Amino acid sequence: MNKLRIGIAGLGTVAQGVLHLIATNGDLMAKRTGVQLSIQRVASRTTKPEVDLLGGVFSNNVHDLVADPDVDVILELIGGEGLAKELIESALAAGKRVVTANKAVIAAHGDQLLASGNVPLRFEAAVAGAIPIIQSLNQGLAANRIESIYGIINGTCNYMLTVMEEEGLAFDQVLSQAQALGYAEADPAFDIEGVDAAHKLTILAALGFATSYDFSALYVEGITQIAAEDIQYAQELGFKIKHLGIARNTDAGLETRVHPALVPTSELLASVNGVMNAVQVVSDAAGETLFSGPGAGGAATASAVLADVLTFAATNFSEREPSPPESQGTATQIQRVAMDAIPSACYLRIPTLDQPGVFAQVASALSAHSISIEAVIQKEPSSADTSVSIVILTDMVVESAVNAALKDLAELAAVVGNITRIRVAPTH
Amino acid sequence: MNKLRIGIAGLGTVAQGVLHLIATNGDLMAKRTGVQLSIQRVASRTTKPEVDLLGGVFSNNVHDLVADPDVDVILELIGGEGLAKELIESALAAGKRVVTANKAVIAAHGDQLLASGNVPLRFEAAVAGAIPIIQSLNQGLAANRIESIYGIINGTCNYMLTVMEEEGLAFDQVLSQAQALGYAEADPAFDIEGVDAAHKLTILAALGFATSYDFSALYVEGITQIAAEDIQYAQELGFKIKHLGIARNTDAGLETRVHPALVPTSELLASVNGVMNAVQVVSDAAGETLFSGPGAGGAATASAVLADVLTFAATNFSEREPSPPESQGTATQIQRVAMDAIPSACYLRIPTLDQPGVFAQVASALSAHSISIEAVIQKEPSSADTSVSIVILTDMVVESAVNAALKDLAELAAVVGNITRIRVAPTH
Repeated sequence: MNKLRIGIAGLGTVAQGVLHLIATNGDLMAKRTGVQLSIQRVASRTTKPEVDLLGGVFSNNVHDLVADPDVDVILELIGGEGLAKELIESALAAGKRVVTANKAVIAAHGDQLLASGNVPLRFEAAVAGAIPIIQSLNQGLAANRIESIYGIINGTCNYMLTVMEEEGLAFDQVLSQAQALGYAEADPAFDIEGVDAAHKLTILAALGFATSYDFSALYVEGITQIAAEDIQYAQELGFKIKHLGIARNTDAGLETRVHPALVPTSELLASVNGVMNAVQVVSDAAGETLFSGPGAGGAATASAVLADVLTFAATNFSEREPSPPESQGTATQIQRVAMDAIPSACYLRIPTLDQPGVFAQVASALSAHSISIEAVIQKEPSSADTSVSIVILTDMVVESAVNAALKDLAELAAVVGNITRIRVAPTH
Repeated sequence: MNKLRIGIAGLGTVAQGVLHLIATNGDLMAKRTGVQLSIQRVASRTTKPEVDLLGGVFSNNVHDLVADPDVDVILELIGGEGLAKELIESALAAGKRVVTANKAVIAAHGDQLLASGNVPLRFEAAVAGAIPIIQSLNQGLAANRIESIYGIINGTCNYMLTVMEEEGLAFDQVLSQAQALGYAEADPAFDIEGVDAAHKLTILAALGFATSYDFSALYVEGITQIAAEDIQYAQELGFKIKHLGIARNTDAGLETRVHPALVPTSELLASVNGVMNAVQVVSDAAGETLFSGPGAGGAATASAVLADVLTFAATNFSEREPSPPESQGTATQIQRVAMDAIPSACYLRIPTLDQPGVFAQVASALSAHSISIEAVIQKEPSSADTSVSIVILTDMVVESAVNAALKDLAELAAVVGNITRIRVAPTH
């Protein structure tokens, strides 16, 4: 039986997941693909590790993987952008196939790393963990013109929003809980401020719309301003709040944006809870397809890494690698739409004094910017409160008009705190 | 640019969908894959068609497709088992690549048609329409040991159950409505009695568990006995009723069964409504993944057919076709579990006379077969009724015991109609 000899860079959770999965399911994979995976070499800056390397030679230097003529495929599982990028480049230059789980390096350098016409570089694990979304975009939906992509692509955010909904807890309480459970990092900014989701959306947008890997083109907003009461009000209005990555082809160009959004409760996406990820793809022939699964974790990510490795195995070591669609290097610049120009219906929660005439002032400020009101929730304040929240769902309105109205509203004497604005997810 | 020359057998909805999709998105596909699809020949028993064949030659005989040396790939879109099987066999024998949307022919003859070590036969469109589930099982999850597959794989059944739930209508009313809308055939037996779902589950089981294509090994039950009140009672118990195809690896062997099932409302699968299909796959590393989308329709099915065609395109016409996992011919017989031996929790709706002591008789009949009761619903009968439904949710119990208990219950004088039994879907 043919062997595919693997070199692994890194020995963290994902690398250990890969080793474990080869140990348990290697025979099954061999039966399925006709190729036996073997570990040739494992490189990590740690000292001699205490995990079973399945016969692989241990190195302290990841460049040893590139130098080793017996390594066929290099798995870049060290993360970060500096050394990872260097390793991928040198591996490709040496003619090695590369699989990476590194969303940051692909989001930042995808164009460059994939620039050669026929690059054996794969990165299924970089987006949405175990979900084969990259393969689905590249192959399963290859006959389609993609219209839009909506992704719940950060498990920390989805976990936190789900717990806030189910237990009515405040953001900070849930964050502490998530940190205790290992669902959020000690420094959670990367997740809860949307950067991680933006890396993934950069990749999804590039693949779905054959455009460049341009992280800087995205609008990015996290979930830090969401309060438990927003989730409750949204529910009364028929929505769930989800943190979404949205890439959407419109007449005005390509929208690429990451922010919390109101999703109608009837949508399947609204029922994706906890640490699960999901990506909904709307395309002209296949219609609405949705792919969900665990977005993180050693085993789930290892599953995606090895899916890529096995795709290499299935090509039977032919000299000429079958060209996956992502490697055609035909990325063209689609015009991106500036956030200011994107229309959304909006949820606004406006903390005001509990006085007569305040709602009229709010309505008039919105009206001055031609913003129509679709629904209102205003409740009697509890006896302890001197302020009251006016919750408004607007009709579709362009972002710049909402921004201007928010500025005017903030200047009203009766508005006594920060206004929360959450966009409603587009229906397509 | 390379050309891939297509021959199409059939000119029904799917074939027309394929022609339309190539007409609209052919350039996009060429950009993605580097290969231009062209229609070489179209064969149908109809007389000269009124659809645009995109330059393809028209034949009345599908065998002309095999005889034409300029046809690279044959799309078998005629359906049925006789001529379709003959065409696929002769095409493969002539060295043509074949794509089929025909679940019946694969479910019945998959082993034989895929028997050669390296067969260029693909059938993504045969299961769950636009959803790339076959590719996901073969490639995306290739590193995993599949534990179970749960599919909502018949759009007619799912549409009917959804409308029964949302509008509280009776089965027959909803069936007429579905027929009027084109969601059910004039002769609906194939869909509502579970045969179509069983064809698809046969394929999913064969791929997921590397076992044979054995339609006859399945237990098959449709939705004809489901009443609107069952849906309502199920909801009170925290479940939705879905028609599921279940393939599940257990210590006792492989379960393959198609029947209505109670799915906990909190499960994503429970929120898949209307004509949408979904397949949930549980595997050891990737965990719970779910794939949903339109399960039928010309455009959606054409999307899947062309996904397969484009996979051929991506292989750059190499002499040796990369072996997809399904073509390894390594199917081994996993022991199948007889339906009688499968344990489930069960929903039982027992129409009884409204008399004292009846519940005790029912409970005692269940107890005689060691069946424990998990929950009961018994409502006051409306004044017009002389009978009342006793609804029982049992604990896990093996099928044969339930069958025996049902027989005893039916013989009770107080039981005045057919008992409805719906199994609860396994949790894994």
